[in-house]
Amino acid sequence: MNENKIPYKIYLSEDEMPQYWYNVRADMTNKPAPLLNPATLQPMTQQDMEGVFCRELARQELDDTTAYIAIPEEIRSFYKMYRPSPLVRAYCLEEKLQTPAKIYYKFEGNNTSGSHKLNSAIAQAYYAKEQGLKGVTTETGAGQWGTALSMACAYLGLDCRVFMVKCSYEQKPFRREVMRTYGANVTPSPSDTTEIGRKILQQFPGTSGSLGCAISEAVETAVNHPGYRYVLGSVLSQVLLHQTVIGLETQTALKKYDIHPDIIIGCAGGGSNLGGLISPFVGEKLRGEADYRIIAVEPASCPSLTRGVFRYDFCDTGEICPMAKMYTLGNGFIPAANHAGGLRYHGMSAILSQLYHDGLMEARSVEQTSVFEAAEYFARCEGILPAPESSHAIRAAMDEAIKCRETGEEKTIVFGLTGTGYFDMVAYGQYNDGKMSDQIPTDTDLQKGFATIPNFPGNN
Amino acid sequence: MNENKIPYKIYLSEDEMPQYWYNVRADMTNKPAPLLNPATLQPMTQQDMEGVFCRELARQELDDTTAYIAIPEEIRSFYKMYRPSPLVRAYCLEEKLQTPAKIYYKFEGNNTSGSHKLNSAIAQAYYAKEQGLKGVTTETGAGQWGTALSMACAYLGLDCRVFMVKCSYEQKPFRREVMRTYGANVTPSPSDTTEIGRKILQQFPGTSGSLGCAISEAVETAVNHPGYRYVLGSVLSQVLLHQTVIGLETQTALKKYDIHPDIIIGCAGGGSNLGGLISPFVGEKLRGEADYRIIAVEPASCPSLTRGVFRYDFCDTGEICPMAKMYTLGNGFIPAANHAGGLRYHGMSAILSQLYHDGLMEARSVEQTSVFEAAEYFARCEGILPAPESSHAIRAAMDEAIKCRETGEEKTIVFGLTGTGYFDMVAYGQYNDGKMSDQIPTDTDLQKGFATIPNFPGNN
Repeated sequence: MNENKIPYKIYLSEDEMPQYWYNVRADMTNKPAPLLNPATLQPMTQQDMEGVFCRELARQELDDTTAYIAIPEEIRSFYKMYRPSPLVRAYCLEEKLQTPAKIYYKFEGNNTSGSHKLNSAIAQAYYAKEQGLKGVTTETGAGQWGTALSMACAYLGLDCRVFMVKCSYEQKPFRREVMRTYGANVTPSPSDTTEIGRKILQQFPGTSGSLGCAISEAVETAVNHPGYRYVLGSVLSQVLLHQTVIGLETQTALKKYDIHPDIIIGCAGGGSNLGGLISPFVGEKLRGEADYRIIAVEPASCPSLTRGVFRYDFCDTGEICPMAKMYTLGNGFIPAANHAGGLRYHGMSAILSQLYHDGLMEARSVEQTSVFEAAEYFARCEGILPAPESSHAIRAAMDEAIKCRETGEEKTIVFGLTGTGYFDMVAYGQYNDGKMSDQIPTDTDLQKGFATIPNFPGNN
Repeated sequence: MNENKIPYKIYLSEDEMPQYWYNVRADMTNKPAPLLNPATLQPMTQQDMEGVFCRELARQELDDTTAYIAIPEEIRSFYKMYRPSPLVRAYCLEEKLQTPAKIYYKFEGNNTSGSHKLNSAIAQAYYAKEQGLKGVTTETGAGQWGTALSMACAYLGLDCRVFMVKCSYEQKPFRREVMRTYGANVTPSPSDTTEIGRKILQQFPGTSGSLGCAISEAVETAVNHPGYRYVLGSVLSQVLLHQTVIGLETQTALKKYDIHPDIIIGCAGGGSNLGGLISPFVGEKLRGEADYRIIAVEPASCPSLTRGVFRYDFCDTGEICPMAKMYTLGNGFIPAANHAGGLRYHGMSAILSQLYHDGLMEARSVEQTSVFEAAEYFARCEGILPAPESSHAIRAAMDEAIKCRETGEEKTIVFGLTGTGYFDMVAYGQYNDGKMSDQIPTDTDLQKGFATIPNFPGNN
């Protein structure tokens, strides 16, 4: 097809949307190591999982052999309300960069949650509803996951209880208000509604909370309330599975216009977006059908892939969730303040960790000020004001495009634009005022974090 | 075409996008009355206009005979970055309302300005650039227009100076920060940078400003700085012209699927969105090709069409802009606090006023609490969190759909969903907390406003 015919935005038709999620584990030679029960150090069983997670989601979490899993009709209907998302040709960015590279981005921000999080939120809420549950509990930091889950629960008529890290609850009243508008019950964490919350409040009066504490409160609430289960927005393999709608749509759109990407780039926090975007492409690599450079971009302030170790670690600070073998900075690692709240996670999805370990993808870290510089540059030529998280991928895509300008190579770059930054204007304001700084952990900081990784035979 | 085949979202392809704006005045038997020069009470000439407005925009303002005006290539390229906007079938809303009506909405919120305002912002910025100007000045209240203009100016490399009503500047720091991210110079109004600003600050120290004052400061700045002109986001006929991309796309999408609307609904403040949406349909009515019920929905707190008078009035509080013959509450009318900031305008576009006067459209007013009730209902089933302004149209569309449930009529309803409410969470919070009230002007309030309408021979 004539390259001139490629539109600014490629939209698939509804019948081109995926009917199956793609489970990349089925094609992996080295499967991700199994989740371990922290009490027994034995692999988690379906039964272990069902106390906390919905039945079908537990099943999906453990399934590393089924390559294609049908997307239920009701979820596909919901997807049609805000998907397919556009694959956008960044004509203006290319022109402004004066690069021979062709740049595309898959834009997931055109829904009220403001990000890709809704793709898994609706799936998880659907399975909770199907199981006859009354509701779900979760934690939220920056608030995008909580918003997405609130939207999905409102649609399905499920109760939604969100524990929001207290400092975010107070600093981001608008995020909280969006969740309330969707009928969610939003509690600042730590709270006096749980045992762990009360304990922490007693120990640390006036604490502004942490994600680890909010997870613990959400899990405790799910376990203690019949008809409730706990759901999570990233890291888990089930979440990456649901997020493959991103990569599958991207793949279909590229094939439709006979576009062959050289480089695929995504930001990496817990791995939900990156895993969703790259899985189908990694599948092609694993099956020997195609080759791509795949780049994970993480904040220099929280560099789990580039400076972490590949070990079993707790997924939460409270140490009550299953342990995963992953690239980790240690669950006791405390990243410096970084506005890309969605990337401030000490570990990384077990799937992505294994792929990285096996050399199937690269990783790089970028500093915050250069991320915001890229964000602003992008906003001014492409229109969209990106989320700080997404802007990590923009930074790397721009850097690759600038290299092409220098070498004259006409590479095709695809990156994931996970969401919008409308609720991140405090961070943009700091950047606009020249008050933003880069905070990179020292080796000593890292050693302190590594020391919190559980030490048991075979964990190395 | 089989009705079952209508997708959730109808997206036109790029080559189906309009290449011309439609100037409904060309088909109107009773043209809108000409703008008057407030100094001479004579119709504004091209020369009168050019001191304040860009040359081509002045020409468009005065042209009431050319039906189709070509959209310049560069504007069409920019439109392709965020348009075509989807025409969405509200399947979930229909189901939840249990109505036999078919409901569609044209959604203009999928761009960073959060509304349809970008359609005219890019056009006005383009003509300023084409004329070789350095920059433009404007005022903004709620901030959507200022954001849209900042985005357009960033894209074209024009300087953008926005006077933001001081209370908004202080209460909506995030809106302000978005504009700054796009490189705009945002000044709280009244300011000490203009004569009128200094005068008002001296008279009313500590004032939180008004739209009228901000307009005056923006006009003064444009007039006093060589290479600058003033631009406006609503009311003017040129703005309605640019906004017809909304209606033209809607018309094409409906025809593509052989859908015949019975009722077309839009919210009405100054008229930019409503005029843009309905113009092509009104054109069909005027030419006798089709018939539609067209409903303008305005806030009960600022009811220019339903309770105003059809007279010549000032468009601004400062009384320096041209006078228009329109439905008005008087430029001295002060609407009660109402969160739909974009609808708090004392007058109405001259085109829409004439159409209403001639019986080509209906008008109704709705109260704020029932608007937010509709907004929340819509958000929970259709996903999108609507702007308060847009929610006026949702309220009326829902009311019409409920009537259909009662009568069993299968009417097709199309409404304009102008934007998103992400920067309006203070208002949503008040609604969620049960602290929102309705504030409707008394007849005495209206009489006070009418008394400010200029009284000269023939003005009745």
